[in-house]
Amino acid sequence: MIISKEKELSFPLKWFSIPQCWRFENVQRGRKREHFQWNMDIIGVKNVAAEAELIFAIISLYQSLHLSSGDVGIKVNSRKVLNSVLKIMDVPDEDFSSICITLDKLDKIGKDRVVEDLMGAHNLQHECCLNIVKVVSCTSLEALEETVRELNKEAHAAVPELRSALDELRLLFSLLDSFGVMEYVTFDASVVRGLAYYTGIVWEGFDLSGEFRAICGGGRYDNLMKLYGAQNEISCVGFGFGDCVIMEVLAKRNLLPQTKKTCDVVVSAYNQEMLIYACNITSQLRQTEVIVDLSLQPKSRIGHIFDYADRSGADYMIFVAPDEIARGKVRIKALRACFNETDLRHFMSLRDETFELAEDGKQLDVPLASISLFVQELHALKSASR
Amino acid sequence: MIISKEKELSFPLKWFSIPQCWRFENVQRGRKREHFQWNMDIIGVKNVAAEAELIFAIISLYQSLHLSSGDVGIKVNSRKVLNSVLKIMDVPDEDFSSICITLDKLDKIGKDRVVEDLMGAHNLQHECCLNIVKVVSCTSLEALEETVRELNKEAHAAVPELRSALDELRLLFSLLDSFGVMEYVTFDASVVRGLAYYTGIVWEGFDLSGEFRAICGGGRYDNLMKLYGAQNEISCVGFGFGDCVIMEVLAKRNLLPQTKKTCDVVVSAYNQEMLIYACNITSQLRQTEVIVDLSLQPKSRIGHIFDYADRSGADYMIFVAPDEIARGKVRIKALRACFNETDLRHFMSLRDETFELAEDGKQLDVPLASISLFVQELHALKSASR
Repeated sequence: MIISKEKELSFPLKWFSIPQCWRFENVQRGRKREHFQWNMDIIGVKNVAAEAELIFAIISLYQSLHLSSGDVGIKVNSRKVLNSVLKIMDVPDEDFSSICITLDKLDKIGKDRVVEDLMGAHNLQHECCLNIVKVVSCTSLEALEETVRELNKEAHAAVPELRSALDELRLLFSLLDSFGVMEYVTFDASVVRGLAYYTGIVWEGFDLSGEFRAICGGGRYDNLMKLYGAQNEISCVGFGFGDCVIMEVLAKRNLLPQTKKTCDVVVSAYNQEMLIYACNITSQLRQTEVIVDLSLQPKSRIGHIFDYADRSGADYMIFVAPDEIARGKVRIKALRACFNETDLRHFMSLRDETFELAEDGKQLDVPLASISLFVQELHALKSASR
Repeated sequence: MIISKEKELSFPLKWFSIPQCWRFENVQRGRKREHFQWNMDIIGVKNVAAEAELIFAIISLYQSLHLSSGDVGIKVNSRKVLNSVLKIMDVPDEDFSSICITLDKLDKIGKDRVVEDLMGAHNLQHECCLNIVKVVSCTSLEALEETVRELNKEAHAAVPELRSALDELRLLFSLLDSFGVMEYVTFDASVVRGLAYYTGIVWEGFDLSGEFRAICGGGRYDNLMKLYGAQNEISCVGFGFGDCVIMEVLAKRNLLPQTKKTCDVVVSAYNQEMLIYACNITSQLRQTEVIVDLSLQPKSRIGHIFDYADRSGADYMIFVAPDEIARGKVRIKALRACFNETDLRHFMSLRDETFELAEDGKQLDVPLASISLFVQELHALKSASR
């Protein structure tokens, strides 16, 4: 889409989407065939500020989900680091992608197996493989620089390339520090991400317990648009954040957000004739902030009606029955706390009306003409007291 | 899902979903291969109050989209009407579904063609076909009763069935009247809906100009669950409301909702060093109600920065540049209206600060430490004045 509209769009773009995605693979914990994925991409920005903006967005979500830097974090690296280190060690360029795939397994299969695999698949010397693993095991920029210095290849042409990659990472970290979120961020030279098209900085969200897969992943992919036919190279950074792993992370910590109760008031009718009044009250209340569930099956058995109202999570039930209607009234029951007598007196004094409050303080007959207003005031009082 | 959980769920259920749907067919106006569809279903309610609740929901959406009863409506019928009329005219039961499909074309191909098709496909006498078309052309319950009376078949066993279907429709209309939405609703005996599984009341949303396809469609399908293996018959009513036709209806009337502007403030940096301050201000403001767009490409060319801020629709731009930072300040520009001097004096007096307002009333240097608070107050003042 971006490529076909390249000339019309005004860059930079900041886009997001939350599509439902599918993939064909075996279902595992935190990995399903169907999921929702939050994507954010910034198109047209070379500056590492784009990476900072996106990582800040992810951490803002962490924070709004009450996940601290003791729970989750983001590991950041740059593909340029490994790329230049391999050059310094005279490993051919064309081996880069497949070495990435081997190194991506470091966590799962351990250093020794990775060294073996590198020697076998890429025909590299044992010492060279050890050095590669040593480099990608670095977890600070300082350690990385120190390790490269020990390789004694200061004179190699790729050293300035490595320096510039490290400068870019330093700049990113200083921006994230300004954003106030650096406590969530660590450098990790082993992060390379599975996708072949990343060209620069890459990152992944992780759970500190180490129990789950990556929470999210992203990076810069400056060449992709040209690959698909764009006239010019278009700078792109983006990430994908699926709903599966984060749900596991939240569930484990009992941090899954509570969904709000579904209604404030249930309106019930004693029989078919009373349903006419119930519909009318419902319609009036639905024009306000009050959330109303109309009970659709008029039942003479009061027990059923209460069961239904109770399950709904409502605070009040309005019950429309022939005896009260004959007196121009409807009954309202408080399902949780009692009615507040002071509130009632205030409400009555405003309208010169009298209500009959039952002895348990939970039942009241209100004039049919006032019921909608009465419930709105109860609702407003309750919202104000929260 | 309902069938597999039949024993655990507590009925009745009121469910809705808004999935993305696909279908394989030719793309036409108001009919695409991919669309979003709002579905609502009520499961476990025999009472026609369920139909009333769903139709009320559709009309509530009409109203919130500012579509009056002069723009759109809902045509209601019951399949039981046609079913019993066919019985009265001694048409075999098994022809019911295919007759529905033929009658569904009445609007498109006209009465004469429908009569021809009925005679050809179902081997019915000409007079019988004329009568069927006469019945389904009725647009009031009274006209329908009158037409059936003229058929002179009062003694037929199916007459009570027709009466009960008409009583059900009358009850539905009285409930919709209580809901206060009857002005949108008409009876139309020709509405049968394409889906074979409907068993009772059916309806479709329509545009009064007659220019578009059905806006939505729904009905009762009491047998479907048993067909798919439910232990007992489960009463179901539901509708589907796609996003394609309603978009056309709204577009034609210039009623498409305006999407809100995307941000309140743009924060821009003069150069890479200033980006550090810009990130910090952005982070502070994003913890408030203020929506902030951080401009990610520091540029010395002030023209570019203004273009970007202007396109964003923001009210203010915060510009972080070395000269002001050296004095501990940042510049804020009003992009639409001027700053209000009274507001400024009030704000300053609270903090014992002085700001330098430019002559055009649109530019101000604010202490770096106060900028976040200052923008929040501007924002609060603006929200309050709306």
